[in-house]
Amino acid sequence: MIWQQAFEIQTRGRGTTELTEEVCDMVAASGIRTGLAQLFVHHTSASLMLCENADPDVRRDMETFMQRLVPDGDRDFVHTMEGPDDMPAHVRSILTGSDLGFPVGQNRPVLGTWQGLYLWEHRLHGHRRRLTLTVYGE
Amino acid sequence: MIWQQAFEIQTRGRGTTELTEEVCDMVAASGIRTGLAQLFVHHTSASLMLCENADPDVRRDMETFMQRLVPDGDRDFVHTMEGPDDMPAHVRSILTGSDLGFPVGQNRPVLGTWQGLYLWEHRLHGHRRRLTLTVYGE
Amino acid sequence: MIWQQAFEIQTRGRGTTELTEEVCDMVAASGIRTGLAQLFVHHTSASLMLCENADPDVRRDMETFMQRLVPDGDRDFVHTMEGPDDMPAHVRSILTGSDLGFPVGQNRPVLGTWQGLYLWEHRLHGHRRRLTLTVYGE
Repeated sequence: MIWQQAFEIQTRGRGTTELTEEVCDMVAASGIRTGLAQLFVHHTSASLMLCENADPDVRRDMETFMQRLVPDGDRDFVHTMEGPDDMPAHVRSILTGSDLGFPVGQNRPVLGTWQGLYLWEHRLHGHRRRLTLTVYGE
Repeated sequence: MIWQQAFEIQTRGRGTTELTEEVCDMVAASGIRTGLAQLFVHHTSASLMLCENADPDVRRDMETFMQRLVPDGDRDFVHTMEGPDDMPAHVRSILTGSDLGFPVGQNRPVLGTWQGLYLWEHRLHGHRRRLTLTVYGE
Repeated sequence: MIWQQAFEIQTRGRGTTELTEEVCDMVAASGIRTGLAQLFVHHTSASLMLCENADPDVRRDMETFMQRLVPDGDRDFVHTMEGPDDMPAHVRSILTGSDLGFPVGQNRPVLGTWQGLYLWEHRLHGHRRRLTLTVYGE
């Protein structure tokens, strides 16, 4: 059994949007009890992240780390057409990934107690981001 | 056909634990000849890694690299409740990933000659880590 | 329905090779209309990347970034048997990943407009690289 759904998220600029509840609802709607799910974001300047979901400072520190690792306005970058955050957004997306898989059991995502699913917008301004969730199993 | 199994690994502090043999045994037990497998770790301070399996220095150098990239006790981090290795463990996990997929053929993981599957504990102290292997195919 | 095919790519040394068209052809050949695909590279010194496909400078800047983050000939590395690019190739592969999943719809990969699939050779010299594409769905 395969179940697939496209959906969109409006981001408000650089930062994370939690998707856990939305994804749980979609897995429930799929009717699949045991199997796997895969989340995919159809962009190269936003990514997916499984992150600690209890303390918001973890996501703030991740942002601090990334801004230091891949600074906006890096003079070594040539691809700067859309501004100082253009190429850093691509690098950040590649380092964190566009696809994310997780097991499904008892008709819901089997995540750890402290694991949340997040969309990470890497551009400074908000964008409408397209995602696809596919669930397969029985 | 879907086959899913949860299992646990006791780590002995920061470092890698090879899972290749254990995972091969589970894929064999699944009875699935051709398909895909997905390994998932239910924590945000330990991750999964496909790494060169012949020379242990590769994993030692990976550790060297990570300690330099994400130093413990980083003063820019706010989330330090559980100590100097708390936030670095989250960063390291996100950079290396919680899920890992690989093809299954002839009832075993189809890995390259030099590819081994490793659990990477990022906390300084040992933890009991929960994982799920899902195999699907025919 | 499961469809699996192994294939090889000859690289010409460090750099990227686009796989999008080849992968689209294979997904078409699978006959699977809706589902998921997973690409896997059976090596620890080459990786897979979903990257912006319009401006080649993006991949050039990714290379610039990686060479700065993981410099060849790093004196902290012990695993240097095959030369100054040996260990950096392993680190780069782990940071970018050996497996890549994406949804399949209407019998083709459902990628974003600007998303291309690339094999990233991290060794300085060319190698013959083995990959497996698995498609599952209905």
